[in-house]
Amino acid sequence: MFAIASFVIIVSTRLGSDFLFTISFSEKNRQPLYEQLYKRIKQNIVEGILPQGKKLPSKRKLAEHLQISKNTVENAYAQLIAEGYVETVEKKGYFVRQIDSIIKKSKSISDLLVEERDNNDTYIYDLKTNAVDLYNFPFATWAKLMREILRDENDSLLKPIHPQGDLSLRKEIARYLKEYKNMSVHPEQIILGAGSEYLFSLIIELLPNSVFAVENPCYHKIVRILQSRDIKFHPISMDAEGMRKDELEKTDSSIAFITPSRHFPLGTVMSINRRMQMLKWADTDNFFIIEDDYDSEYRYALKPIPTLHSLDNDDKVIYLNTFTRTLAPSLRIGYMVLPPDLLETYRKKLTFYSCTVSEFEQRTLKKFLEKNYYERHLNRMRTIYKNRRDIFIRYLGSLANVLTIKGYEAGLHLLITSNKMSEIELIQKAKENGVKVYGLSEYYLDQTPETNTVIVGYGGLATADVSEVAELLIKSWQ
Amino acid sequence: MFAIASFVIIVSTRLGSDFLFTISFSEKNRQPLYEQLYKRIKQNIVEGILPQGKKLPSKRKLAEHLQISKNTVENAYAQLIAEGYVETVEKKGYFVRQIDSIIKKSKSISDLLVEERDNNDTYIYDLKTNAVDLYNFPFATWAKLMREILRDENDSLLKPIHPQGDLSLRKEIARYLKEYKNMSVHPEQIILGAGSEYLFSLIIELLPNSVFAVENPCYHKIVRILQSRDIKFHPISMDAEGMRKDELEKTDSSIAFITPSRHFPLGTVMSINRRMQMLKWADTDNFFIIEDDYDSEYRYALKPIPTLHSLDNDDKVIYLNTFTRTLAPSLRIGYMVLPPDLLETYRKKLTFYSCTVSEFEQRTLKKFLEKNYYERHLNRMRTIYKNRRDIFIRYLGSLANVLTIKGYEAGLHLLITSNKMSEIELIQKAKENGVKVYGLSEYYLDQTPETNTVIVGYGGLATADVSEVAELLIKSWQ
Repeated sequence: MFAIASFVIIVSTRLGSDFLFTISFSEKNRQPLYEQLYKRIKQNIVEGILPQGKKLPSKRKLAEHLQISKNTVENAYAQLIAEGYVETVEKKGYFVRQIDSIIKKSKSISDLLVEERDNNDTYIYDLKTNAVDLYNFPFATWAKLMREILRDENDSLLKPIHPQGDLSLRKEIARYLKEYKNMSVHPEQIILGAGSEYLFSLIIELLPNSVFAVENPCYHKIVRILQSRDIKFHPISMDAEGMRKDELEKTDSSIAFITPSRHFPLGTVMSINRRMQMLKWADTDNFFIIEDDYDSEYRYALKPIPTLHSLDNDDKVIYLNTFTRTLAPSLRIGYMVLPPDLLETYRKKLTFYSCTVSEFEQRTLKKFLEKNYYERHLNRMRTIYKNRRDIFIRYLGSLANVLTIKGYEAGLHLLITSNKMSEIELIQKAKENGVKVYGLSEYYLDQTPETNTVIVGYGGLATADVSEVAELLIKSWQ
Repeated sequence: MFAIASFVIIVSTRLGSDFLFTISFSEKNRQPLYEQLYKRIKQNIVEGILPQGKKLPSKRKLAEHLQISKNTVENAYAQLIAEGYVETVEKKGYFVRQIDSIIKKSKSISDLLVEERDNNDTYIYDLKTNAVDLYNFPFATWAKLMREILRDENDSLLKPIHPQGDLSLRKEIARYLKEYKNMSVHPEQIILGAGSEYLFSLIIELLPNSVFAVENPCYHKIVRILQSRDIKFHPISMDAEGMRKDELEKTDSSIAFITPSRHFPLGTVMSINRRMQMLKWADTDNFFIIEDDYDSEYRYALKPIPTLHSLDNDDKVIYLNTFTRTLAPSLRIGYMVLPPDLLETYRKKLTFYSCTVSEFEQRTLKKFLEKNYYERHLNRMRTIYKNRRDIFIRYLGSLANVLTIKGYEAGLHLLITSNKMSEIELIQKAKENGVKVYGLSEYYLDQTPETNTVIVGYGGLATADVSEVAELLIKSWQ
């Protein structure tokens, strides 16, 4: 094995000029050395540590001090000059330039810049739950489709987009939902938007004066959107079958936001029984359910369970899903399926909002779906993610006397519970080994229960790193 | 000259089968004949006029009846089959298929489909204000940059985007604002979003419990967003210098949404005096101003007037602009510049919202700005639009005894006032000649004053059509 510390070299050096330079290089950092150097110097300039007019050390001197090649320093300086942070004065050397007056005008801007500073040095691996594997994205195929569209579809790409999004893409999504989830959806019911958050915001506007019920624990952003708009909501506890209907009924909630196919973060799959109860709840009082079908594409062992939407005969379910997690986070494409009544309301009230997804990417995605690349990609990723999950289960299974693994039937994260350590200890021990994991308690809304469970996301790891991370976790928690 | 009626052939025909088929072809319609035919048949199917199982006429018969080529009918039928509306039964012919069960499940879906039906047949030219010229968009250049990005930047395109948008694009926008509008803006102050509406929604969340002041008349969407969120606002009258400050002060408004560089729809340019008054209003009580710099890129005769933002020493102005009108509506890229205090609030409260603009288009736009294609495009379009404007002024100037033209110093529309006809008559007469113009009164908020002014947008016309449209308007209004 290895020690993390050996990969981090802290260099504090007082150079020929009279300023202190602190630079830490990490070999595990995927950024080239010159980029790390350039970023640190830039940060020092922005923070005012290197003030305007300050002379930088010569390339040779800095290279010697930091024990790196002169070429690396040269590249870093070139980047700083290109971005206007540094200027050369002939025969004198490199000097810090005056940065935009705004920084002086207001202290808070430079304060904020400092906030942006990269504080991930402590960690080599961040096991966050919202990362996905980008290494295996079929970029060549995606690029090929984009090039085809540029060639064939030409300036029709520029025309205004239907507020709900391109009809041809909506048709492909309807087909996909039919074939893979057995959902009967008319393309006219589909509304495309730049991610689930945006679509959720639209729902809030579509149904004003609603009171929301959210799962507790739950996905942060949903609650932040509600809070940010000062909208009343109730956190509802979970049991083994899903959101507790008895608790829900005691509130004045009129919309329930739930993740039946895989609860976030607990991983609970809502039972058929509870699904029917939820639909009945909505039908009785003309309430609505938002079904966030998040992560439902990655199921490893379970039989597929019908979506709430496909069980719904009374048009009470708003179905929400996104391509952000199955393709890439930089592709901001999500969609929702509205029941007919709500679609009518949407068309009366909200079609003045332009579609937020670029036509170009809508058409690329349409081709990607049409030619079944999406299906192939999902199948491939399902295998890749399942293998990662299996590695974690196998490795951490060796600590079965102290650890329990849960929530592994689907999705891109696991829950690990210890009978020896608290959540805080689990996080701290992993941190000591360079791995960032997340405490379950931070997803709870009303009170923060003490837990001894952490969440381990494996979506964003490189496949080659998985065993190493699992070993680091064993080392941390044994 | 020509008569519009001659281009519209109404064909009502009872065909071999027992149903009535009504199809109107327009030679002015840019859609191919087969597409017009296919759409009409599809619409009849969706509306239930052609019910499930109904036999369609043979290709030969329909072609004869409509006096079009058999090939055209063949293409239309092929499209209907491809989309699942029609099926072939061997040796029997073409039959209407059962459409998705959802249509039967709920009447409202099919009702809504009917609403979508194209009702623009009455008009040959729609002079709406929000259309832009797509014929002259440098698509080849844009496509070239996109291909470069696909080739060079590869899978870095897939990574999560900074909530404010790609920093390299924000830097280019800051440079552009400095060079072309002499605005000092730090890239960190810029927030990218999928259009002005989205960004305005963010501002509303950033400053909760605000009371808005909007110009009266004004751009519809701003008011619809406020209404949709049940936010208090006051319409404030305009005078020759801009929003009336005396009226503003009598309200409890805390944010003024204004279009100083060119009021929509009146075309008023806010005087320097009023600009200073507005800034003082905001500074005195810690209020804010949203400066929508809409259409400021297209100024024909006026000297450039400093933006409110560049006159603002007290960080009271939120600057808002979009590339939708200068590039293309399908590119959903707008941006706002936040004052430092608000930026800090934004970073604390709202960065959980993911950026709504696709990384791919952000990088393309960055290159487009960086290589000065944007500047060249603007210069070119300014000339093109100015020529159109000049044609309208010249043609309609021949009716100077009855018409007055206003608001022509900038932007993509004119206001035309008649001393003989009311607004309704102006609209009706233009309609009789196949031209759609818009009444000024529909942009007023509280009461609808009777006007004799219409708005003529020329952004979306083809240059070749401008003289013809101007002649049609003369014919309508002389």
